[in-house]
Amino acid sequence: MAEQMAEPRTVVDDAHELISSRRVEGTPVYNRKDERLGAIHSVMIEKKSGKVAYAVLSFGGFLGMKEHVHPVPWEMLTYDVDMDAYLVDLTRDQLKNAPTLGLDEADRPRDRQYDEEVSGYYGTMPWWGL
Amino acid sequence: MAEQMAEPRTVVDDAHELISSRRVEGTPVYNRKDERLGAIHSVMIEKKSGKVAYAVLSFGGFLGMKEHVHPVPWEMLTYDVDMDAYLVDLTRDQLKNAPTLGLDEADRPRDRQYDEEVSGYYGTMPWWGL
Repeated sequence: MAEQMAEPRTVVDDAHELISSRRVEGTPVYNRKDERLGAIHSVMIEKKSGKVAYAVLSFGGFLGMKEHVHPVPWEMLTYDVDMDAYLVDLTRDQLKNAPTLGLDEADRPRDRQYDEEVSGYYGTMPWWGL
Repeated sequence: MAEQMAEPRTVVDDAHELISSRRVEGTPVYNRKDERLGAIHSVMIEKKSGKVAYAVLSFGGFLGMKEHVHPVPWEMLTYDVDMDAYLVDLTRDQLKNAPTLGLDEADRPRDRQYDEEVSGYYGTMPWWGL
């Protein structure tokens, strides 16, 4: 019994099913060719259900480049434990042509018409379903 | 047609169904008696489904008080547009006696035994269901 009590509430981490929003933000994003595409700026959460609708990926911000973001459906992202990064199956060109917002617009949700463009571009289900 | 084009992608906000994780973090939390209980430190997200498992509420941090956090099931929180705050139906005493973690432990998930204590305390369903 004493031994059982000796290891309560183990802190698991990388392999855990949960991740803090503060750890998601800033996590780098790579594609399958090991090209760094950017980093997670934030996630957009459905208020009522608490479900992440999409991730907001940030790009640029170096050497005078204007920083911008791409909303990307959450289901497109796979967390890679070894790389401590998200992997996404997109080329740089695919992302370059994807729906884009300015960094100053990143933390405000858009309307459903815009969000439908996003899911349409990636061929995923809109976050509100069908 | 030109008029239709004139108002694309309206930025809606308070009344919107979505909210950025960066806006959730730092949002104050009040109870039904208008007592300020703390603020949202972060949310814990289920990696695969993208569903928020629980919010992490921060407390203290003033006048030498040690800052700590309480994991609180997301469904306990209601966003109040007028107050720009989350409302939760808990007294200060209920929260004082609730499962608590140090601020340095806030961004790491715990094991299911601990998370079951949390949902047990609040009488909610564990985030992984039954």
